[in-house]
Amino acid sequence: MTNETLQQYRQEMHDHLTNELLPFWMQRAVDRGNGGFITHFDQHGNDSGEDEKSLIAQTRSIYTYASAHRAGYGNGELADMARHGVDYLITNMWDQEYGGFYWMTNRKGEVLIDQKIVYGQSFAIYCLSEYTLATGDTRGVEYARKVFDLLQKYVVDTCYGGYFEMFHRDWTLKGPGAAGGDRKTLDAHMHLMEAFTTLYECTQEPIHRRKLLEVIELLVTKIMHPAYGTGVPQFWANWQVAPQIKFDVIWGWDRFTEDGVKREAEDNTSYGHNAEFAWLLIHALDVLQIPYDTYRDQLQKSFSHAVDYGVDWEQGGVFVEGSHSGAVYDREKEFWQQAEVLIGFLDAYRILGDEKYWNAYANVHRFVLDKMVNHPIGEWWPLMTRQGVPIWTHMSHSWKINYHTVRAVVQSIRRLDKLIDKE
Amino acid sequence: MTNETLQQYRQEMHDHLTNELLPFWMQRAVDRGNGGFITHFDQHGNDSGEDEKSLIAQTRSIYTYASAHRAGYGNGELADMARHGVDYLITNMWDQEYGGFYWMTNRKGEVLIDQKIVYGQSFAIYCLSEYTLATGDTRGVEYARKVFDLLQKYVVDTCYGGYFEMFHRDWTLKGPGAAGGDRKTLDAHMHLMEAFTTLYECTQEPIHRRKLLEVIELLVTKIMHPAYGTGVPQFWANWQVAPQIKFDVIWGWDRFTEDGVKREAEDNTSYGHNAEFAWLLIHALDVLQIPYDTYRDQLQKSFSHAVDYGVDWEQGGVFVEGSHSGAVYDREKEFWQQAEVLIGFLDAYRILGDEKYWNAYANVHRFVLDKMVNHPIGEWWPLMTRQGVPIWTHMSHSWKINYHTVRAVVQSIRRLDKLIDKE
Repeated sequence: MTNETLQQYRQEMHDHLTNELLPFWMQRAVDRGNGGFITHFDQHGNDSGEDEKSLIAQTRSIYTYASAHRAGYGNGELADMARHGVDYLITNMWDQEYGGFYWMTNRKGEVLIDQKIVYGQSFAIYCLSEYTLATGDTRGVEYARKVFDLLQKYVVDTCYGGYFEMFHRDWTLKGPGAAGGDRKTLDAHMHLMEAFTTLYECTQEPIHRRKLLEVIELLVTKIMHPAYGTGVPQFWANWQVAPQIKFDVIWGWDRFTEDGVKREAEDNTSYGHNAEFAWLLIHALDVLQIPYDTYRDQLQKSFSHAVDYGVDWEQGGVFVEGSHSGAVYDREKEFWQQAEVLIGFLDAYRILGDEKYWNAYANVHRFVLDKMVNHPIGEWWPLMTRQGVPIWTHMSHSWKINYHTVRAVVQSIRRLDKLIDKE
Repeated sequence: MTNETLQQYRQEMHDHLTNELLPFWMQRAVDRGNGGFITHFDQHGNDSGEDEKSLIAQTRSIYTYASAHRAGYGNGELADMARHGVDYLITNMWDQEYGGFYWMTNRKGEVLIDQKIVYGQSFAIYCLSEYTLATGDTRGVEYARKVFDLLQKYVVDTCYGGYFEMFHRDWTLKGPGAAGGDRKTLDAHMHLMEAFTTLYECTQEPIHRRKLLEVIELLVTKIMHPAYGTGVPQFWANWQVAPQIKFDVIWGWDRFTEDGVKREAEDNTSYGHNAEFAWLLIHALDVLQIPYDTYRDQLQKSFSHAVDYGVDWEQGGVFVEGSHSGAVYDREKEFWQQAEVLIGFLDAYRILGDEKYWNAYANVHRFVLDKMVNHPIGEWWPLMTRQGVPIWTHMSHSWKINYHTVRAVVQSIRRLDKLIDKE
């Protein structure tokens, strides 16, 4: 790749970030009346009024503003926004009696859902550690540590390893089936790896390092497909593959049939997840100072599956999901898969050196900037047809927000800079 | 079995307990100068002078005195002894900085070995919970909870499940090999089941119940031999069987060859352990209020292996250890195996209803009272030839003490009483 091309892509990303994405949020996210962030916006960027503040949306927002500040953007304003979010999180979402963060409040800060969902707790650890790294305010890591300790005590399955996911307010495990208490998921474990990486980066504590290494080992040996190295979404407690179902408490707008199962419930993997897993693993190895070669086979499998089957060379962008062996099941284009493969393919190109990863990056980069970004407004469309026509049109709600989009652009710029330096 | 025979055996046990065993300890165990207990006595019952107080010996002593008090013995004096022991344990053995109990002090209470050994921590949970149940003094369960929380945070292997065992003072895992940091053992997990049972009996907290259920599942599905249901002593972290080696920090006087391995390092099981495991499981099920039938197959296998291969019908008593499939490797007679099979065989007789278990109990009962008890002194010989001639002659040291002997007699009396009621 020529330096000129790299520079051009970098400039496009930088323009999008500083002229569109960050301004979108800096102009409208802060809830000055109630604290925390407003996280629901329609296609025109107007507040769509849903009266909820989800743990996911608040923590992801904190991560976004703190990490963008640490990356050098915002002239201090993003740090102030992150602090404003942490104030709300600690004051309104922390459970003083049982510990941990509630799942949902209304805008005023009254608790709507008091359950303890591990997916949300992992983002609390992630954003609070990032916040301390970005600002030096130790309240972040103080609460991140508390959540980490609660997970170790209440969430770990000491028989089969790994972490359960769905808990009542008092940290007793929820029931089976749609309540989710009998399952373990790729999602939760991947995001725990992500969270423990930043926690360890912040604390340098041996126990945080050890638990990060353990969750990596778990992901590689039990959660990734033994032959294809692709992510398997759901398991029973004993790590037998479970058919993928929709949980009562959801964190994303995944598509299920009306009875709450996937069409291919036991042979389904997400290209976006696989690339996200691989780059998060690379980042963890950087923080742990462990050579990439330790997991080269895993990285190769995750990235090559995403490129070989997930990239739409005709219409651009990356598909939603398909089988472990290759067949594509869902050819629509979701925002977060695009975001994660951008980072992943740049890492793959840097580490594995194969030109196909650059080509895949360039393909998705073009699709995102030419079709997925709602340029007059600044954020990305959440879901498009294969051809790039918006299906869903909100700019943000409790599960969308800005963590995937802003992180993808910040991290792509960082990676493009590395490639430019190398040329 | 006739009521008359049962009464006779019960009377013999009661006489031994109240005239020999308990007086032995009540007369000499309390260290009035330094606090805690003196735990080293020679064959004449004289203080043999070793300048050490081990976590095992102190906690097992507390368990012995507290549990014997709860069972109705000692007219309060045993409760006072237990309190005296708890004072020492908390004051001199608790690590104020990192939490958990040190492994060894000298008699004065100065720390000799500051490592955190899970085997010892499990006995701390066990004895402190028993102490609160026996006396109502809540300091016991307060520290038991603290240790439980530390185990969940630092000791659990969140990848493969189960608990590691050997830690430095700061709860970082020790190295591999003889340091023990790369292994998991039957011992530690069986004693955690024992400890969590009494902790849950004391607190009735859901998390203590859940972790007890998880360690039971682990024992039954991973630690017991898949075909024979017998205990496998050592594993690698991923539950592959590891050759049985001697650790640097030991808790018993197990016999190894000079290079620290067992003659049959990968096919070795202890009759005493298997019967102990089974009766501790029965006790756990009682406390959990779960039917015995849930684990009937496991119970049957553990007990029948001990009776069919372990009992010495010629010379009396139970052998040390042998292969999973039956061949006996070590025909000597150790004190603790006799103690544990006494309780186990009475449970097996009550639950499985097979006369062979009564005959086995009667056999070991006779061997113990006719040969293993050092009657003029009151305690049991630690190790005898197959025929019943003492090989080792100390009445107590850091790894012997009184937990096996006193518990076996207290629990046998309780079980004989149940059988007498039934007749």
